[in-house]
Parts: sequence; structure tokens; C-alpha cells
Amino acid sequence: MKHIKAGIVGGTGYTGVELLRLLVAHPQVELSLITSRGDAGTPVADMFPNLRGALDMAFTEPDMAALKTCDVVFFATPNGIAMTMVRELLAAGVKVIDLAADFRLGNPAEWEQWYGMPHACPELLEEAVYGLPEVNREAIRKASLIANPGCYPTAVQLGLLPLIENKLVDLQYLIADCKSGVSGAGRKASVGTLLAECSESFKAYAVSGHRHLPEIRQGLQRAANSAVGLTFVPHLTPMIRGIHATLYARLASGVTDLQAVYEDYYKDEYFVDVLPPGSHPETRTVKGANHCRIALHVPQGGDTVVVLSVIDNLVKGAAGQAVQNMNLLFDLDERAGLQGIALVP
Amino acid sequence: MKHIKAGIVGGTGYTGVELLRLLVAHPQVELSLITSRGDAGTPVADMFPNLRGALDMAFTEPDMAALKTCDVVFFATPNGIAMTMVRELLAAGVKVIDLAADFRLGNPAEWEQWYGMPHACPELLEEAVYGLPEVNREAIRKASLIANPGCYPTAVQLGLLPLIENKLVDLQYLIADCKSGVSGAGRKASVGTLLAECSESFKAYAVSGHRHLPEIRQGLQRAANSAVGLTFVPHLTPMIRGIHATLYARLASGVTDLQAVYEDYYKDEYFVDVLPPGSHPETRTVKGANHCRIALHVPQGGDTVVVLSVIDNLVKGAAGQAVQNMNLLFDLDERAGLQGIALVP
Amino acid sequence: MKHIKAGIVGGTGYTGVELLRLLVAHPQVELSLITSRGDAGTPVADMFPNLRGALDMAFTEPDMAALKTCDVVFFATPNGIAMTMVRELLAAGVKVIDLAADFRLGNPAEWEQWYGMPHACPELLEEAVYGLPEVNREAIRKASLIANPGCYPTAVQLGLLPLIENKLVDLQYLIADCKSGVSGAGRKASVGTLLAECSESFKAYAVSGHRHLPEIRQGLQRAANSAVGLTFVPHLTPMIRGIHATLYARLASGVTDLQAVYEDYYKDEYFVDVLPPGSHPETRTVKGANHCRIALHVPQGGDTVVVLSVIDNLVKGAAGQAVQNMNLLFDLDERAGLQGIALVP
Amino acid sequence: MKHIKAGIVGGTGYTGVELLRLLVAHPQVELSLITSRGDAGTPVADMFPNLRGALDMAFTEPDMAALKTCDVVFFATPNGIAMTMVRELLAAGVKVIDLAADFRLGNPAEWEQWYGMPHACPELLEEAVYGLPEVNREAIRKASLIANPGCYPTAVQLGLLPLIENKLVDLQYLIADCKSGVSGAGRKASVGTLLAECSESFKAYAVSGHRHLPEIRQGLQRAANSAVGLTFVPHLTPMIRGIHATLYARLASGVTDLQAVYEDYYKDEYFVDVLPPGSHPETRTVKGANHCRIALHVPQGGDTVVVLSVIDNLVKGAAGQAVQNMNLLFDLDERAGLQGIALVP
Repeated sequence: MKHIKAGIVGGTGYTGVELLRLLVAHPQVELSLITSRGDAGTPVADMFPNLRGALDMAFTEPDMAALKTCDVVFFATPNGIAMTMVRELLAAGVKVIDLAADFRLGNPAEWEQWYGMPHACPELLEEAVYGLPEVNREAIRKASLIANPGCYPTAVQLGLLPLIENKLVDLQYLIADCKSGVSGAGRKASVGTLLAECSESFKAYAVSGHRHLPEIRQGLQRAANSAVGLTFVPHLTPMIRGIHATLYARLASGVTDLQAVYEDYYKDEYFVDVLPPGSHPETRTVKGANHCRIALHVPQGGDTVVVLSVIDNLVKGAAGQAVQNMNLLFDLDERAGLQGIALVP
Repeated sequence: MKHIKAGIVGGTGYTGVELLRLLVAHPQVELSLITSRGDAGTPVADMFPNLRGALDMAFTEPDMAALKTCDVVFFATPNGIAMTMVRELLAAGVKVIDLAADFRLGNPAEWEQWYGMPHACPELLEEAVYGLPEVNREAIRKASLIANPGCYPTAVQLGLLPLIENKLVDLQYLIADCKSGVSGAGRKASVGTLLAECSESFKAYAVSGHRHLPEIRQGLQRAANSAVGLTFVPHLTPMIRGIHATLYARLASGVTDLQAVYEDYYKDEYFVDVLPPGSHPETRTVKGANHCRIALHVPQGGDTVVVLSVIDNLVKGAAGQAVQNMNLLFDLDERAGLQGIALVP
Repeated sequence: MKHIKAGIVGGTGYTGVELLRLLVAHPQVELSLITSRGDAGTPVADMFPNLRGALDMAFTEPDMAALKTCDVVFFATPNGIAMTMVRELLAAGVKVIDLAADFRLGNPAEWEQWYGMPHACPELLEEAVYGLPEVNREAIRKASLIANPGCYPTAVQLGLLPLIENKLVDLQYLIADCKSGVSGAGRKASVGTLLAECSESFKAYAVSGHRHLPEIRQGLQRAANSAVGLTFVPHLTPMIRGIHATLYARLASGVTDLQAVYEDYYKDEYFVDVLPPGSHPETRTVKGANHCRIALHVPQGGDTVVVLSVIDNLVKGAAGQAVQNMNLLFDLDERAGLQGIALVP
Repeated sequence: MKHIKAGIVGGTGYTGVELLRLLVAHPQVELSLITSRGDAGTPVADMFPNLRGALDMAFTEPDMAALKTCDVVFFATPNGIAMTMVRELLAAGVKVIDLAADFRLGNPAEWEQWYGMPHACPELLEEAVYGLPEVNREAIRKASLIANPGCYPTAVQLGLLPLIENKLVDLQYLIADCKSGVSGAGRKASVGTLLAECSESFKAYAVSGHRHLPEIRQGLQRAANSAVGLTFVPHLTPMIRGIHATLYARLASGVTDLQAVYEDYYKDEYFVDVLPPGSHPETRTVKGANHCRIALHVPQGGDTVVVLSVIDNLVKGAAGQAVQNMNLLFDLDERAGLQGIALVP
């Protein structure tokens, strides 16, 4: 049994604790270290008591020498951190999976526009592989640096790609109406995500422009090999985990049997589940699991296709997909450590 | 001070208890009776203890003679009940407000198709007035029979009408992505709306065709004076009250300053609040209140307009709108009994 | 109709917005000003859009001259602010209602011990009246300075006082197991009260000692005219509003018909509702209302009495009780502005 | 690797689907059949789509011949079913774990009193072993029939037993104030557990007497070897999973270092976690996991001990404990299949 030494930089957020949950249970991974500048010295299980008895390790100061002893380093940091450390790790032969956005956009000017800071290592953007295994599996296997996709981009791309690659819809008028649980906002003190503020309420946010818009558009354009017109509206829904993407597109004339298109497109994909016709996937059916479940509708026999795509934003939308990418990087069974069944109810 | 004698038929559901909350506090209404076949004899405050001290009345068997002594009768019954009783009440000079769907669709064949039973009094469909005051105020004032609109149709029509009446969008490709709290499913025993089933989860439902689709389409077509192409997708969101409609349409070329269009359209409407540019209305800002709050976006300077429209499904989407209609029927201040402020947090 | 000019100091928290909701609808109050050091200049309805159309006023800097023009000033500030401003307001003839804890404990040494700072005006502690109208109504009518009770203390004292004043239980072993919605923690950025942290979870907190312990104990001791032994355990429950106190005491021998004791004790109290025997009050039956609902049980015919007492922590536990106190201070109908019915569902 | 053939009778409720989640992932179990009278023929994954891809099996009619081919049969049925089928299964050499209450009480008269029907096989009550491994491990290993404990009884007994066995508290005045998520009420259509009824609300229920009272009392009395006086008050809290028991007892004089008592009592128990002094366990730290986490407090240096004990009602309170019992029955590692980490957030 092959053992991978893994390190985590910045493990005190929700993607961090989810990575811990998955890596601790992964049969081929040995967790080497987890860093946190602010909480160095604190036992991890003091902050996350669900790990008591399962992980006996404390947060440490980020230390490049220690990180270089790892086979793989995950960055579960805010945007802008990984790009300052990756060059040195790659040079030392360490593989890197960045769960933040630093390497998701291929164009550094676009990155700067949306993230508000110049990119620290634009020369690595071409080397980085966008870690959506259902699209880039072979490139991921050979990569050293993985840009782990955003949560909304994962749900939206998996939902739309079969339509786009097969040229079945009008590319100029795509709509992604997405709903996310509140954990997507991260584990940081703020008024807007207090239970008393966002429970028993529903709202859209960032309608004028969300950072995941250019990421989704880039992915769709690569698939279409042409420009696409996309409207993306994210919403906050009063629950902890889960993303539900409701996707609308206008069908080209003569399109039939979309169900077969999707089933064929994903026939070899363990983590993408095309539901039977007429289904309505619930986000809870992927709670804690790495699956994306998809259903198709063409309401009232019209010319608009409605795709419903659900993931757990912290698993297939973050930590689970990162582990899936790690499995590919090290030639493990892609499903290793990711076969947990969603918690229902 | 004018006193209206009001009766309620079928008051044990959520629209019933909400009507009670509003009518008990209404300065010009005297509640005469409330019927329930299944719970006759039970004090209302035993079923709804929030009314203890405020309402000392028991449910009674439905009795036509007693109902005829009312000035107005509200039907908070399942679909198909009001249509069997309305003729006799109207003949006795009683005004009727039906909170169910019996008189919402003008075409009895369409009604039968969507509601699965023949209409019992198709001859009254023409007489019934669709009770959306922002559209039909003058007709409501003169009416005897009001078809109180559905919850989704209220949020969607108020959100889209200014675009449609002003011919600002492509009528063939309208999208209404709507999210409702669980109270919309009513107060009846069922597995699907148990807290353990629908809390911490999000899903679409009835994508192939929901009964509110023909109602919304009828309203939009009357405004457009032509056919419209509408895709309507309802979703269940894990909260009690509130509807959030996210509406998408493709702008005709040359359209500018939508904000002014909306502010002008609703300038005299007390219950419709057009928010400042860039806003994201939260459903909680109308929780328990009769307002609809609307915001407009044209993301990224494109040609797609996004309208956000929120209501409380039990107030502006049901009982509050019914009281607003009653106020119009009896020439009271339209706001009477409806000035409560939304409960935040 | 008498008009009271009211000011609010520190109105950006949950007790502040709840005071606004109640005062805006109060028929005899004119809201003069609302201060906030951090948000001066911001229209109130920008922060709390539920007030759009109902309140057209901006937060202002705290200004003693302006406050002195009020008839009554409410402090909805953090602990330790009111005590620095009250003396001057009282000297100017302004009545003061402090919703914080500055004047709740009669003993300044005890105050310093629990609140961690010396008291700024201990000489006013004797003048201040503890604003629990069901206990101190006549003193409140004649007072100038009201210490509005804490939320837990209101629910617990109303639940236990009939037992204690009538000497029906062992005073040495009283237990108050209390559960609060998350709004009790206030509207301030923090990790612990994020939806993603405290939804779908339940926990006790501050078991070793909570600031409301000495306040409750003081109230019970005044009623008992002797020392009492009280264990108070607060818990956080995943909802916004509501407190449920479950109170346990050992009955003295020979005690019968507790129901009659409670019904008699509260027979003239509009805001305290003793439920029929066998009842289980739900917190939602007081959501947004100023009522306390109480039920009594002596399980299995034993010698332990269980009292269930529910309030809305922001209404009877804060802003509503403050308005009730104001009504008494100005000789208004005690119920004025407080007859709203709880929002169910 | 030893393979156990397992059957489930009545698998459409929450304990059923939780058993499925655990057994499907158990390395030494082969799931043979799952019965449901009402849903025979339905693929399990149609009812519980979280199992899609993990379990390809349909519900079948209960069939004694098929059940007899199993090594172990779990009953996840309503009360009163298992007792009609167990005798025949035991005679065929099949081991039985009943997750319902049929074999929990040793006294058939008491069972009849609380469950409202005569017991169908009182002669088996003595043979049945109460399946709380921390108390009865050796007896379980040798048993054929396991009475799997109730959810509240598990949390309360694990919390109180160290005090009782060590004679540290007054046995005549024990209080168990317990809070449960709504899944404890089961997956059946009812009004009271609708999201719109029990979200945003908190209430006690069954205060006069809950069926878990005699079960808890029996367990405590066996430990004390004498009668105990227990007041048990269950509450419904607005979340899906989790039980929090807050336990109160009066300390005998001279008791010190309770922490050491608990740590010693549970030092070899993998599934019972005694937290450090001053802790407040959150139910989410055991969500989906088989652990019980316990913390101790003696507030304000008084003579009342407060024990906080949390479990997941569907895992350690039902299906997880059943699997733990199965592991013991078949001499497997007690932790097999039960090492999943709680899902946080």
C-alpha cells in the first residue's frame, strides 16, 4: 500500500476541516502537518472536536522546510497566499493542490481584475491544470500544480458541458441560477452570515458580478471553443451545505433525447450521477459525499432545457474534489477515501 | 367607523391562521364565524395558541345560512370547494374572496386540465376579478367575486409586468426561477415537508409543469396582449415563509434606465417597494408584511435583465392580499390592517 | 392623545431594531432620534429594510442636548454605556429605560464581579427600579430610571415566582434549564453564532456561571425574603427568537392544585398566560409578541414540579418589556403598542 | 475476512436508512435483504437516492424463510412487530437485534402499561440482553437477542452511570432535561413535525410521562441496585439529528474530582469521550458518528453536578449502537464500520 505524505496550509476554515475529515480516513494518506499562522500550537481537535480520537496533531507555523518533506501540499488558504509559495514547493518536487482561486483563471489580467491584486507567478498559470477530473483527467495525472475548481463552477460546468460540447444549445443565452448553503461564505466572523441574519431568509447576492463568473465562462468557452454569453446569479439559502444549480438554455432545433446524451457523456464517471427522467435531485443526497447528481427537464415540450445539478460545496465543490485530484496525481484509485455515503436525513 | 362582518370557510390551514391574525387586528372588521368540517367545536385558540387572548371563538360546521349573514366570506379551502358554494352566496349579496384557485383561470377547459376536475360554475369565471390590486384595482372595487392570486404568480407578475407592459423584453424567452418556503405546501400531514426531510436541503419540484404556470402566463399575456413563452421552475427552500423570484428576460435593443421604469410604474403603490439600484432584497424584510420588494440588475452590462422580487407567501401571496382586496371591495383605506412591519430578525 | 417623545441610544443591534418596530407602530409615541456612533448618517431603513416606508430617519451621533429634549430615552447599548449618561439625563427630567444590565443588580460589588468593571454611578442603583411589571408595577409607575430585565431572568422569574412567594417548594434546590434562540447573542460579527456553526447543533454554554445567574437569584431572593439555591444552565438552540425555560423544584409536602395557584397569581396579568393543565407551550406562540406563556406539570404524581415558561427574548425579554415599562411610566394603557399577535407559522 | 449475512426488517424509516448507510460501508457485512410490506418491489435507492451507486437492492415482502438464511436480522420496525417474529428466528439460529422497544423492559406488565398492548413473548424477556455495550459488553457477546436501547436512554445512562455506580449523588432527585432533533419522531406523515410547524420553535413534550422514562429508570436502578427518583423531560429542538441531555444531581457530601471518576470509568471505551473540564459538547461533533461526548460541571462550587451528554440519536442512539452490538455478537472489532468522523460543519 502506497503512502502519500500530505500537508495542509491554512487548515482552520471549512475546506480545511473537510480535508481533514477526508484525509484522516483515506487509506493511503499519512497526514504530515497542518499549518495555521493564527492558531499554531492549538491541537486541531480542540478547534474541531469532531476529530477527537481520530487526529492527534496541532496546528504549526507555516514552515517551508517542513512542507518540502511532503509529497503533496493542499492550500486551504484565502486567495493570494498559494501563489507566493508554490514556486518553491514545485522546485522541491512537491505536488500542489490549491483549493483557493490563485491558478483557476488562465489570464493573469483577468485574475487581477476580479481578485484585485496582481498575480505573483503568472508564469505558472500555463503549467497549472484546472482540476475538474471529468474534463481534464489525463492532464491532471501528469500535472504538478492543480487549480482546484470553485464550488459554483463545478456544479455549473458539470451541468452544462454535455450540452455545450455537443452543440445542442444557443451559446449566447445561458443562465445559471445557483443556490448555496452558508458554509460557502467560510468560517470567519461576519454579521451577514450569522444564523440570526440568514436563517429564515433567502436572497441573491453579487448579481452584478461574482468571481466565479469568469471561471465558469472560461470553462464553458474552452468546451465550446467559442465565446459564450452567461448570466450567473448566486443566492444564499438557509442551510449549511449544498449547492443547487438550476441551468437554463435554449435548445437548437431538432434536439431530442437529452437524457441519452447525458447518460452517455457521464457513463464512465463514478462521481457524476445522471438521475432518471423527471427527477428532482435534493442537495441532501450528496451531503458529505463527492457526487454530483444531475437531472434534465424540457418543461411543457418547449425549447428551453432545464438542468438541475447538485453537489456538496465542501466536498465535490472543494475538499472532496481536491482528494480526487490527489488520487489522480498519485495514480491511486480515483475513488479512494471518497466512497462515504451522504448523510440522510 | 364602518364594520364589516367577515366569515372564513376552512380556517385550519396556514392561510386560515394568517387571515385570522390579520382580521383580528383589523380596525374595521368583525369576525363572525370560521368554519371547519373536521374541527367544528374546537376553540380556534386551542389549535393556534398564538391567538389566545385575542380570539375567543370556536370552529363551526359550514352552514350556508350563517355565511349569508356575513358581508364578505373568505375561502381558505382546498381547490374545488369554493366553486360549489359561491353562487348561492353571491345571490344573497355576500361578497366572496377565494384564496384557492377556483376562479383564477379564465378558461374552464384550462382549469380542468390543470386541476383535474370539471369546473362547477364556469359561468362565474367571467364575473370573477383576478385580485391583483396593482393591476386590477378599479375592477376589484366593483366586483363581488375575487380570485385571490397564487403566491408565485404574485411575486412573478409584480416583477415582470413593468417590462412587459412597456415592451422592453423578448416575450418568447422569459424565465422565472422561484424559491418558496415550506409553508407554501400547507399544513397537512406529509412526509416530504417534514423538518427532517426538507431542512438542510434544497430542491426543485414540479419542473415539468406546476399549476401556477398557466396562472402566471395568463397574467403576462393579458399585459402583453400576445402570447408569451415562459419557463417557470419552483424550488423548495428550507425556511417557513417567503418567496424569492429571480426573473430573467432578454432586453430589447436600446433599453436604458430600467430603474426609472419600475419606480414610475409603482410610484403610487404602497405595497410594492422598488429598491435602490444594486440591491438584493431578502425575504425576511417582508416576513409577516404585505409588501413586495423588487430590485433590478443588468449584470456585466449585457442584454439580460435580472429582476429580484420577494414577498411573504402567506401575506402578499395569500392572506394579506385577500385583506387588501377586501379593503378595496368595501372602499376602506387599502392599507387598513396591513401596516405591520416585517419581523427582523 | 398624549404624545411621548422617545429617543434610542445605540439602535443597531437586535433589541434596537425590535424597539423601532414596536415604537414606530405605537399610537402614542413619536420617535425623536436614534443614535449610533458607528453608523451616524446612515438611514435606519438602509440597515433594516423591513422599516422602508415606515421610518424615514437616519442614525445620529449621540448628543446629550438632543437626548435631553426627549421624554424618555431607551438605552439599547452594550453594558457599561448607560451608567455614564444616565445621571445627566435624569437631572434634565428625562426618564430612562436601560435595556442593558447596568442597573439590574442592586449590589455594585456584585455588578463589578460579574461585569468586570466598576460601576460608574452606584448611587443610582437604589433609585433604579427593576422593570418586571408583574412584580414591581407600582414602583415602576413612580420611577425615573428603569432597569429592564434580562431575557432569561424574565422567563425564569415569571415561571418560579408563584411557587416561591407561596412557599411551595424547597428553595435550596431550584433548577433553571433554559434554551435560547441565537438572536440572544446579539448582532455582532462572531464565528460562534454563524449559521454554519450553530444551525443543526445544540449546546449548553456558560454552565460555570452566566451573568443572568445573579440577576435571577436576586429576584427570587427578594420574593422569598431568604437565600435560594439556584442552578442555571443556558443553552443555544438553532433558531432565531425564543426562550424556553424548563424549571424544576421539589414540592413541599401537601401541596396541591398548583394550577389554581398560578391562575390566581396571574389573573390580572394581560401578558402572562397560564395554559390549561397538560399543555406544552411552544416558543413560536409568542414570536414577535409580548406574552409569556406558562404550563405546569407534576410528572408521574411525584414531588417534583416542572414549570415550562416561554417568551420571545427580543420582546418580553427585551424591547417589548421596555415598551411596557414606558407605558407604565407615562400612565398609558399598559398594552398600548403591544397587542400584535405572534407570527405562526 | 469473516462475512456476516445481515437482513433488515422494516427499512423505510430513519433508523432503517441509517442502518443501510452503516452496513453498506461495513467491511465484514453482506446485506442480504431488506423488507418493507408497503414498499416491496421499490428499489431502495429510489426512496433514498443518497444510496444510488452504493446499494442495488429492492425492498421485499417480509418472508420468514429468507430471513432465516441470515446470520443476523435487525428489526427497524414500529414497536410490537419484532416480538411476533423473534421466537422463530432464534429457533433457526439467527441472531436478532431489535431497534424498537419490544425487549427493552424486563417486566412485561410494565411494558404493557407503557406500550398499550400485551407482550407477545414475555418468556424471551429474560433471555434478551439490553444492548448498551458500555454496561453489558460480556453479556452481549454471548447473547442471541439484543434489545437495542432507546436514544434518550443511551444519552442519559451514559451520562449518569458513573455517578450512580460510585454512589456519588442523591438517588432520589435526579433530573434529565433532554433535547432531541426531529428525526427522533420518525419518517412518517404528521403535522406536528412539519418544518413549518417545528422549525423556529422549541417545546417540551410528553412531560407527564414518556416511554423512555421506565427504560432509563430500569437502567439506573440496575446500576444503583435500589430505587431511584427520576424526572425526565424531553424537548423537541429545531434540527434533524442529535440529542443533548443535561443531567442534574445533588452531590453527596465530600465528593471531589468527578472528572477523574468519569475518565476512569470510560478509560477503555472507544465510543465514550469525556471532554476536558469546562467543556460544552455540541451535538454536531457527533453528527453521523457513534460517539457519546460527555462534560462535567459543578457550577459555582455548589452541591449540584451538571452532566452534559450528547449523541447522534440515529447512530449511538439507534443504528450505530445496533452495529456495535452486531460487532460484539460476531466477535468482530467493536469499532468495525463505525469509525466515520462526524460531519462538521
